[in-house]
Amino acid sequence: MNSGSSTVPGLAALVWPATIARVGSIAPACAATLGFGVRPPTIASFFAPVRLVATVGQDFPELHVKLLRDRGVDVRGLQVASGRTFRWTGAYGYDLNEARTLDTQLNVFADFRPALDDTQSRTPYLFLANIDPELQLEVLRQMRTRPRLVALDTMNFWIKGKRDALLRVLREVDVVTINDGEARQLADEPNLVKAARKIAALGPRTVVVKRGEYGALLLDDSAFFVVPAYPLESVFDPTGAGDTFAGGFMGYLAFRDRSDSATVRRAMVYGSVMASFTVEDFSLRRLTRLGPADIAERYAAFYELIRLEP
Amino acid sequence: MNSGSSTVPGLAALVWPATIARVGSIAPACAATLGFGVRPPTIASFFAPVRLVATVGQDFPELHVKLLRDRGVDVRGLQVASGRTFRWTGAYGYDLNEARTLDTQLNVFADFRPALDDTQSRTPYLFLANIDPELQLEVLRQMRTRPRLVALDTMNFWIKGKRDALLRVLREVDVVTINDGEARQLADEPNLVKAARKIAALGPRTVVVKRGEYGALLLDDSAFFVVPAYPLESVFDPTGAGDTFAGGFMGYLAFRDRSDSATVRRAMVYGSVMASFTVEDFSLRRLTRLGPADIAERYAAFYELIRLEP
Repeated sequence: MNSGSSTVPGLAALVWPATIARVGSIAPACAATLGFGVRPPTIASFFAPVRLVATVGQDFPELHVKLLRDRGVDVRGLQVASGRTFRWTGAYGYDLNEARTLDTQLNVFADFRPALDDTQSRTPYLFLANIDPELQLEVLRQMRTRPRLVALDTMNFWIKGKRDALLRVLREVDVVTINDGEARQLADEPNLVKAARKIAALGPRTVVVKRGEYGALLLDDSAFFVVPAYPLESVFDPTGAGDTFAGGFMGYLAFRDRSDSATVRRAMVYGSVMASFTVEDFSLRRLTRLGPADIAERYAAFYELIRLEP
Repeated sequence: MNSGSSTVPGLAALVWPATIARVGSIAPACAATLGFGVRPPTIASFFAPVRLVATVGQDFPELHVKLLRDRGVDVRGLQVASGRTFRWTGAYGYDLNEARTLDTQLNVFADFRPALDDTQSRTPYLFLANIDPELQLEVLRQMRTRPRLVALDTMNFWIKGKRDALLRVLREVDVVTINDGEARQLADEPNLVKAARKIAALGPRTVVVKRGEYGALLLDDSAFFVVPAYPLESVFDPTGAGDTFAGGFMGYLAFRDRSDSATVRRAMVYGSVMASFTVEDFSLRRLTRLGPADIAERYAAFYELIRLEP
């Protein structure tokens, strides 16, 4: 059994600035281990400039903030509140597919009220990470220009406890990312295909269902696409693979500044590429050794992995 | 919870005759429900002529034999022994992924000794279905000309009880089809990628790992290929989906009479196509309404399902 413990900066919204940038100048990766909550901005920063709106406690290591800055992430939206950082501790069984939560401490996250400044509120690609859907809606209300694309992540806790608020915000987003068990729960439907269609009917044009070691399922404009997880010989730490996926997915869409069907499919694969690097080592260690050539090479390997002649 | 009960004709060897045939003349499907043991020859007969070597008891319905004949399956190798037919009864939980065996009766299967006649022993595509590996080896020894391709299926019962015999026969086959749990058990390795490589090192050039509702994984000449299960809105009965897969896989290879990497990938998809039809209704009912246009249409849908631009 493996176990993980992570400090999360109460990730609320990743707010993406102008996007046509950085293709040939992906910055060198961070130089130390980070908790999984900083993964999405770190991962996304491989593709496009990133703004982060989040809260952390006074115990959050200054080193981690420096590392985000070193990767070019705009951390002006990172509030340091008095108290301790959100903390999740979990454990994995034999198949590394399902995490069991051992401990969750909300800490400073309990009082988090995201406030976007003028620049942040005009960001074209917005990722509403997994927080209270009322806060997600509040962030959306603060946007002064409608983003070109809004994605939302959620989980069982909100599906059960804040269902009405979640349904309200779902009506206004373009993309939802959710794991398979939670998709079934949200749609109240055991069949995953029907569940994805029911979720799309709630608002989002695009539904991304994360399936752990089995990859991810996309429903986009009524068509399905399936991307497997990359077959790895060593899976050390699945913590945050789903978050990493979201970072790669959003980063690629922001980088391309489009979301047609072919681009969304490629974004699914880039999400899977980044997740495959994440699980190869504990925490963010693998990412610290990652360069653009590695990303391009693994994308090509994914292409080969699912390549079928007509 | 669903449950299934099936009579199996002690399927020993599907023996495939010359293969370049039937592309435009796929025969109309059977007209009644059959137990899952007759699925592989039935499914394979959509692609190529099929010879069946198997044993059944006196209780085996003459109607089923007639249906195999109607699909053009050569049933001269079907022995009717005194006693009852092999019978398996199982049940499925919520996710329809894992069957729980409720009852297994070997019956006439316990004394089965397959004997190939001259024609059968010169068949170019040989599928050694899931029986005692000593019998699989005996069938292989009876082949007067080395088949162009030999595939083998096996299960936990033989992996545990007849490991040495299984390792012997594995050295002589080209393809092994096995489910994921059993692949891990055979290789004594929890990581599926390493397990597939270890199995390939035992002899087979091609390892096909069946993953239930998650599709199948192929390791062929050191390269991996992943095919998902088709996303279905209704899964009525997963009984024998793996057998159906093998029937489509072998049938397509025999039809094309080649086993290069691109053809093996297509065969994986045809296996998945046929499995997707099977699970759409109980027993073989869906297959009785199946025509070549349905098969071509679903292959095209699979192509779209995994299509990725470079």
